[in-house]
Amino acid sequence: MTNATLPDVYQEYLDALLESGLLIASGVPGVYGKGQVFEDILDRVNRGAAESGRDLQAEVLSFPPVLNKKLLEKTGYLQSFPHLTGTVHSFFGNEHDHAAVLDEVAAGEAWTARFSSTDVVLCPASCYPVYPYATGTLPVGGRTIDVQSYCFRHEPSGDPARLQSFRMHEFVRLGLPDDVQAFRDMWLDRGQVYLKALGLDVRAEVANDPFFGRGGKILAESQRGQALKFELVVPICSTERPTALVSCNYHQDHFAQKFDIKTSDGECAHSACVGFGLERITLALFKTHGLTPATWPVEVRRTLGL
Amino acid sequence: MTNATLPDVYQEYLDALLESGLLIASGVPGVYGKGQVFEDILDRVNRGAAESGRDLQAEVLSFPPVLNKKLLEKTGYLQSFPHLTGTVHSFFGNEHDHAAVLDEVAAGEAWTARFSSTDVVLCPASCYPVYPYATGTLPVGGRTIDVQSYCFRHEPSGDPARLQSFRMHEFVRLGLPDDVQAFRDMWLDRGQVYLKALGLDVRAEVANDPFFGRGGKILAESQRGQALKFELVVPICSTERPTALVSCNYHQDHFAQKFDIKTSDGECAHSACVGFGLERITLALFKTHGLTPATWPVEVRRTLGL
Repeated sequence: MTNATLPDVYQEYLDALLESGLLIASGVPGVYGKGQVFEDILDRVNRGAAESGRDLQAEVLSFPPVLNKKLLEKTGYLQSFPHLTGTVHSFFGNEHDHAAVLDEVAAGEAWTARFSSTDVVLCPASCYPVYPYATGTLPVGGRTIDVQSYCFRHEPSGDPARLQSFRMHEFVRLGLPDDVQAFRDMWLDRGQVYLKALGLDVRAEVANDPFFGRGGKILAESQRGQALKFELVVPICSTERPTALVSCNYHQDHFAQKFDIKTSDGECAHSACVGFGLERITLALFKTHGLTPATWPVEVRRTLGL
Repeated sequence: MTNATLPDVYQEYLDALLESGLLIASGVPGVYGKGQVFEDILDRVNRGAAESGRDLQAEVLSFPPVLNKKLLEKTGYLQSFPHLTGTVHSFFGNEHDHAAVLDEVAAGEAWTARFSSTDVVLCPASCYPVYPYATGTLPVGGRTIDVQSYCFRHEPSGDPARLQSFRMHEFVRLGLPDDVQAFRDMWLDRGQVYLKALGLDVRAEVANDPFFGRGGKILAESQRGQALKFELVVPICSTERPTALVSCNYHQDHFAQKFDIKTSDGECAHSACVGFGLERITLALFKTHGLTPATWPVEVRRTLGL
C-alpha cells in the first residue's frame, strides 16, 4: 500500500504520537526520535521479550547498526531485497573535490554523487551477523543465540509502524532440522502468549518476505507454500491489514550453507530465527491502550513492571 | 596515526578483546559485535553517566542511527568533516538494473555504483538531531536535554578504541552564553569525578576536532585558541596518546543560528554539549582493570553496581 492510498487513520495516529512527544519528527517518513515515555515502554517490552527466552540460556550478543558489506553480498540479500538495502558511502576525495561537493550542497544539487561506497552497509535484520560468527561445527544439541541491533530498511511510508530504522530483538537457533523447526514453532506459541499478556489482539499468519520484482512473486509463493515464515500480527491502524510484530522464520539450510555451519555430526545445519519488532510492539501498545501508560489495564502494566 | 604506524600494543589489546569474546570481529576495522559481558558493563557505564546528570532534570530523548540528510547539509558538517560522513544509498532501479547489480556482485565489481542517495545519512554525534528539535524560543532559564544514539564516523583504524560505529550519551544545554559555558565547565568536573570513580587515570585537555584539509588546520587552531573544546583523556593503549572518553564542547551560537533557537529575551541562544563515549569508557575499564570484571577493584565494582 503506497502512502497515497493510506487511510486517514495512519496519519491521525502519527499526528497523535508526534503531538504527545512520544515520537519526534525528522522530516523523513519512517525516521523518528523517541521521547522518554516511548523509550521507557520500549525498554520494558524488550526486557519482556528477553524474559520469554530466559530458560533457553542463549548466548547474548549485540551488533552495531552497520555490517561488513561482504556479508550482504554473501547472504543473497541483494538478490531478494535490493530496494530495501542501505549501503554506506563516504568522501574519499581531495580538497578540490571537497570544494565541488560544497558548491553542490550550496546549489541544492546531488552532492552525494561524489561519495563512494565504504566497506559497510546498514544491518537489515539483527540475525545477519550471527551466521558468519557461527561458522564451524556446532556443539551437540546445536546453539541458541539472543541478539539485538538497530535495523534499516529503505521503505519510506506514512504508516507510523513501518519504520526505516528500528530495533529488533531476535532468538536464533542453529542445529538439526527437527530441533530448529520445533524452536520456530515453540516461539509461535511463546510470542502469542507474550503479546496477549500485553493485552494485544494477536493472531498467527503464514507470511512471505517482500521479495523484489516479478521473480520475487515466485519466491514469495514458494515461501508461503512451504510455510517457512509465520508472523504474529496485531491491528494497529487497520484490522484488515494488521501489522506483523513478531516473525518466526525457518531458513532450512540457506544461511548454514553459505557460512559453512555444520552440526556435530558433520551435516549442514539448519537455522531458524524469531524477531521481536520493538518499536512495532510499543506502537501497538499505545494504539490499543491509549497514549498514557498510567491508564493502561492493570494486567498490561503488571506484565511491563509498571 | 595511520594503522601502519600503530604500535603492537593496539593489536595485542584488540586480539585479547576478540579472544575473550568481549568483542566480535566483523572483518571491518572499527566495526565489532559485543558479547554479553561487554554489553553489561557498557549498560552500567551508561546508567552511571545518566546518573551524573540526574539533578539537571533534563528532557530525555533517543534518536535512531540515521538522520535527515538536510540536517547534515545545514549544520556545516560537510564543510568540516566530509571524510567522516556516512551517506545512505539504496537501489531505485528496475529488474534490468537489478540483473546488472547481481552480475557485478558475482564478478566482484563495484555494484554500489548503481545505488543512489536516500534521504538519510548516518548520525555523526548524538546531539545533532537536538538542534532542529529545539528550533524556536527557549523557556526562561534555557533548556537541558539528555540524548543518546548510535554514531558513525568513517575512520577505519586498528585502534580498538577508534570505532566507526559507537554509542554516545550526551547532555546538551541551550541558553544564555554564561549559563552554557558554566554548564560545559561543570561537566569538565563531573566527568572527571565519574571517570575517577571508575578507577581511570583521567586528565582534562584542550582539544580540537579533526577538521578536513589545509583549511581545517586553521579551524583547529582557532578552536584551541578559544578553548571551545575540552576532552577528558585516559590512557588505553598509550600513555603518550591517551584516548578521549568524554568531550565538553562550547558551540557559541553556531547551532542556534542555523536552527533559529532564541533565548526567552529573543536573542540568539548559545549551546554546549558533553558527550560520553560509551564504548571508549568500557574499553578503558577492561584495559585498566583487566578482562574479568569479577576481579576489578571493589570501588570500581561499587560505582558500577556490580
